[in-house]
Amino acid sequence: MLEFQLTGTGNAGGVPLWGCDCPACSVARRDPSKRRQSASAVIRTNEGVTLLDAGITDLAEHFRFEEVVRVLLTHFHMDHVQGLFPLRWAESERKIPVYRPDDPEGADDLYKHPGVFQFLPSCEHFRELDFGAFAVTPLPLIHSRATQGFLIRQGHWRLAYLTDTVGLPEQTLEYLQANPLDELVLDCSEPPCDTPPRNHNDLNSALSTWRETGARRLWLTHISHRLDTWLQQGAALPEGVFVARDGLSLSPDHGA
Amino acid sequence: MLEFQLTGTGNAGGVPLWGCDCPACSVARRDPSKRRQSASAVIRTNEGVTLLDAGITDLAEHFRFEEVVRVLLTHFHMDHVQGLFPLRWAESERKIPVYRPDDPEGADDLYKHPGVFQFLPSCEHFRELDFGAFAVTPLPLIHSRATQGFLIRQGHWRLAYLTDTVGLPEQTLEYLQANPLDELVLDCSEPPCDTPPRNHNDLNSALSTWRETGARRLWLTHISHRLDTWLQQGAALPEGVFVARDGLSLSPDHGA
Ligand SMILES: [Mn+2]
Ligand SMILES: [Mn+2]
Ligand SMILES: [Mn+2]
Ligand SMILES: [Mn+2]
Ligand SMILES: [Zn+2]
Ligand SMILES: [Zn+2]
Repeated sequence: MLEFQLTGTGNAGGVPLWGCDCPACSVARRDPSKRRQSASAVIRTNEGVTLLDAGITDLAEHFRFEEVVRVLLTHFHMDHVQGLFPLRWAESERKIPVYRPDDPEGADDLYKHPGVFQFLPSCEHFRELDFGAFAVTPLPLIHSRATQGFLIRQGHWRLAYLTDTVGLPEQTLEYLQANPLDELVLDCSEPPCDTPPRNHNDLNSALSTWRETGARRLWLTHISHRLDTWLQQGAALPEGVFVARDGLSLSPDHGA
Repeated sequence: MLEFQLTGTGNAGGVPLWGCDCPACSVARRDPSKRRQSASAVIRTNEGVTLLDAGITDLAEHFRFEEVVRVLLTHFHMDHVQGLFPLRWAESERKIPVYRPDDPEGADDLYKHPGVFQFLPSCEHFRELDFGAFAVTPLPLIHSRATQGFLIRQGHWRLAYLTDTVGLPEQTLEYLQANPLDELVLDCSEPPCDTPPRNHNDLNSALSTWRETGARRLWLTHISHRLDTWLQQGAALPEGVFVARDGLSLSPDHGA
């Protein structure tokens, strides 16, 4: 059993953005299914829950302490780690291991007061970690601070969770071409832009990155209210390309 | 019209604490009215809402951008500012002024990327700020980093919001003795301790501080699951002393 679930598919401000009345934010305020929390995911197996980033601020409402077996962090921007701050004060002998990028600063005082979290030495890139029910390979990304994505593998099924990034480092691209993906979950913060953002993909760069990887399916995440408003206008996406939504589950289909 | 409401009365971990099955946490998990979020308050007037600290992580669910007129910060510990991180990305010409202590670090990258918040020069202590419907005097406290409390005045009605602190600086105590309080909302993180905590009050230090101020009523806040468990055992508090709870409102009673 393995379930990969996107718990959040929004950018740092989320959708609806506070105080915004654009078409996407207005719809999301009326229809909770259109909301987007901070980009994040979980992997559920018989062993328990693995958190991929922790930008959801009410994690304690969703996950019992006992079931969280580890946290995998892409990077230390606040929209990816803010949920750890209230959780860290849990009283327990058991520590929750946190796999992290090579970032000596971390976020605020998390390294100084880790509480129940144990920050492991930084991840080695391209080296597969075997967690039993699945394996994870950290891959370097291109962002404004040290950031890694995760290739998740169970048998021959492969999913890459790559946010936050603009394009991909050559080495990461070559690794993905050599290890073909079933599912690519990729940063796509913005609609097609004349001047693409510096630290995130717009739709053009997300699509060209997807084609380079050769992944079967592309799931857009880290979505801004600008992309959602653009999508409302009804543009067609290429076959195999999907807009992710909060709560979406992707699971290995070993019969396929 | 002025309403002072405690939006949170818990310490950094809140009640229930993640993973804790102590008597207080067990009760709070069953009965939402016993929960405690991060210590914080709001002042509502006809002008709008003033936030006192921003440790509640879903502020956008409770307050519209348009109604928040300012934020008063006691200090930059994460349990008092974490709610600002998602809010800052609001798109607006209008900035929300933030009154802050003299702390050159702030929290994480808040000063660098303030977004919709405008961090004002640090507050001058003992100098009353006139906000029209009410006035606020910042007062220094004793904590592990630069921290201020707020004396809130409307006419002759005075409420002091003093968290996080252990005891009070001499100057602050003298100021409060010269400006007698109707309501004192005070840090009381722990039950009576043989070795009191270094940066917060236990019940003994909270009670002796209250008596020194001469305030009519004392409201305990910044409460830990340890204090709640101790209170469940039924100890009687002195007359005029109350345990605050999330949602409690205190308003000037000009007829009294
Ligand atoms: Mn992000
Ligand atoms: Mn980022
Ligand atoms: Mn505190
Ligand atoms: Mn504090
Ligand atoms: Zn919007
Ligand atoms: Zn407890």
